[in-house]
Amino acid sequence: MTLKFEIVKEHKNGLTRAGIIQTAHGYIETPVFMPVGTQATVKTMTPEELKSVGSQIILSNTYHLYLRPGHELIAEAGGLHKFMNWPGPILTDSGGFQVFSLGDLRKIEDGGASFRSHIDGSLHFISPEKAMEIQRSLGSDIAMTFDECTAYPCSEQEAAEAVRRTTLWAERCAQVEMQEHQSVFGIIQGNVYRHLREKSAREIISLDFPGYAVGGLSVGEPKDLMYQVLDYTVPLMPREKPRYLMGVGSPDCLVEGIRRGIDMFDCVLQTRIARNGTVFTSAGRITVRNAEYRRDFSPLDRKCSCYTCRNYSRAYIRHLLNVNEVLGIRLTTIHNLHFTISLVKELRSAIIEGCFEEKAEEIKGVYDKRE
Amino acid sequence: MTLKFEIVKEHKNGLTRAGIIQTAHGYIETPVFMPVGTQATVKTMTPEELKSVGSQIILSNTYHLYLRPGHELIAEAGGLHKFMNWPGPILTDSGGFQVFSLGDLRKIEDGGASFRSHIDGSLHFISPEKAMEIQRSLGSDIAMTFDECTAYPCSEQEAAEAVRRTTLWAERCAQVEMQEHQSVFGIIQGNVYRHLREKSAREIISLDFPGYAVGGLSVGEPKDLMYQVLDYTVPLMPREKPRYLMGVGSPDCLVEGIRRGIDMFDCVLQTRIARNGTVFTSAGRITVRNAEYRRDFSPLDRKCSCYTCRNYSRAYIRHLLNVNEVLGIRLTTIHNLHFTISLVKELRSAIIEGCFEEKAEEIKGVYDKRE
Repeated sequence: MTLKFEIVKEHKNGLTRAGIIQTAHGYIETPVFMPVGTQATVKTMTPEELKSVGSQIILSNTYHLYLRPGHELIAEAGGLHKFMNWPGPILTDSGGFQVFSLGDLRKIEDGGASFRSHIDGSLHFISPEKAMEIQRSLGSDIAMTFDECTAYPCSEQEAAEAVRRTTLWAERCAQVEMQEHQSVFGIIQGNVYRHLREKSAREIISLDFPGYAVGGLSVGEPKDLMYQVLDYTVPLMPREKPRYLMGVGSPDCLVEGIRRGIDMFDCVLQTRIARNGTVFTSAGRITVRNAEYRRDFSPLDRKCSCYTCRNYSRAYIRHLLNVNEVLGIRLTTIHNLHFTISLVKELRSAIIEGCFEEKAEEIKGVYDKRE
Repeated sequence: MTLKFEIVKEHKNGLTRAGIIQTAHGYIETPVFMPVGTQATVKTMTPEELKSVGSQIILSNTYHLYLRPGHELIAEAGGLHKFMNWPGPILTDSGGFQVFSLGDLRKIEDGGASFRSHIDGSLHFISPEKAMEIQRSLGSDIAMTFDECTAYPCSEQEAAEAVRRTTLWAERCAQVEMQEHQSVFGIIQGNVYRHLREKSAREIISLDFPGYAVGGLSVGEPKDLMYQVLDYTVPLMPREKPRYLMGVGSPDCLVEGIRRGIDMFDCVLQTRIARNGTVFTSAGRITVRNAEYRRDFSPLDRKCSCYTCRNYSRAYIRHLLNVNEVLGIRLTTIHNLHFTISLVKELRSAIIEGCFEEKAEEIKGVYDKRE
């Protein structure tokens, strides 16, 4: 089976909605936040812990898995689900964004991207066809087309060239046969140029993918500019298919993305700041590693019901981080993922109950512009 | 309540035995292997995971907790059990061994040990009374007397001096009032000199502690020499009290220690080698980080029922270790602790069933002299 998407409730603005995506590995209630498992593991977490914080789907990275351990090895293991012991849905990105991030280490032409590995400098080439072949080997439920991402700022000419190439590549990706259970999503580029976003949306949507992503955002542009792009791009995307905003997931951006009609998000922020000792709370971010929490015997967040907050104090977590004990970053990661996934679930409930605006304002009251 | 010890079954050699220790925080079936939680955490593990691998008691380190986060802070948190969320029994060492390990950074006199912190070089002084005060703040179920440990090799004169000081200190430790639920064990020193071990045993045992440890072994001496020391020291220790061999815990040493009448063991080997990618299996040690396991889709040990072996392949664990993912060392740590604790439990069952020798030979067939 390929993916099915159903809208459960639509907000009166005609954009914000609650839905359900059905995949061969289970249902996903949208809007959804997807934890990132770059190297076939969401950093520090077991699959059972991911379930316990409410994860419904995880994201993994084609570029990283292609390099290590190699997609053939994962295919030999029976696919990514089996290899990493995660029974739920998996989305894989195409590697386009990672290749873009390599900067001087890569060269992009119409045929594909040549690049040097960030690990050992070895030379590689990924074409659109190759990106799909890798994702076919991984066996993800949702695969992404190979796209060209641009930075901010970016000239109009460069952005136009990336849009042209992204469409060319999407056409080639669409030709590649995937496993029966896999669905491929197209990616809309265009940087912050409205007419380019419109062109890209038109071209990509004409290829009739079962879902679409807005790519190339959160690459350095101000948040207001990102919201403007969503304002004019999302309404062009088909109502009856899932809409995915790539690489975005701070609390305020989740609210603003959902408000504008986005169904899916992924972000490394939660797990990354957790490793630096920073956590989200219902009263804003705190850096629990700091000395001020040395004798603070309260939980990270009194309003939180996660494993960490039920069992440990800020003082203990601060001690663990301070002496570089792994349990410290495990506990902050569990909390940050639980916090974010719960926040999105609460927004979903609010959409269904018809009080999205109130819930959105409540969150923005704490997190607006500060993340 | 202080500790109670009951012998359940004694082997025909009159030394090897299965028992039960009762503490305020629960029962401990002996012989027992105690995982080491140096800094108020057994590296990478939650308390629930410790329970799931069969841990009945853990060890924590007075020296480390005194420096970070400080014993007053732990007292303020309600004691070590509450601070780290471990509800079971805890044994704390006295810091004697850690101070000894500081080498040139410490100076030992009859009054106590002056030393520089291994972290920031700050100057500290721990007397026998101070060591007990710290352990009283931590609230461990079993506290250890402050002792002077010697290295191998060590002159007879030095060893004799350490025995004299260890007795002097034990007398002072015995005077310190502890919390009601705490029991203090005495430590027998004497290096590899039979007459010094005998003298130390006589003096320490005369102080009538509820349990005794053999200290100062596994400090560089050949294993056969360690076994000889146990051969003439353990029979001097009271039958009706627990006997603890400090800092020893490789599979072959566990067998030989239990054979000679030891009830309790602790060792950092299991967690340390796990972090280097080495695991115990029923067929001997393997270093799963090595390239030869790249495409090995079997579990670490087909005969093992731990969480790691039930769910993950060598190939996946090797990948995680290879890309420095925390989950890799979590999985190897879980396995090594489960393996070791299960091995000791099997030896205990064998004692009760009267087939200790057979079980011992089976383990020694795999692990003799190789660890």
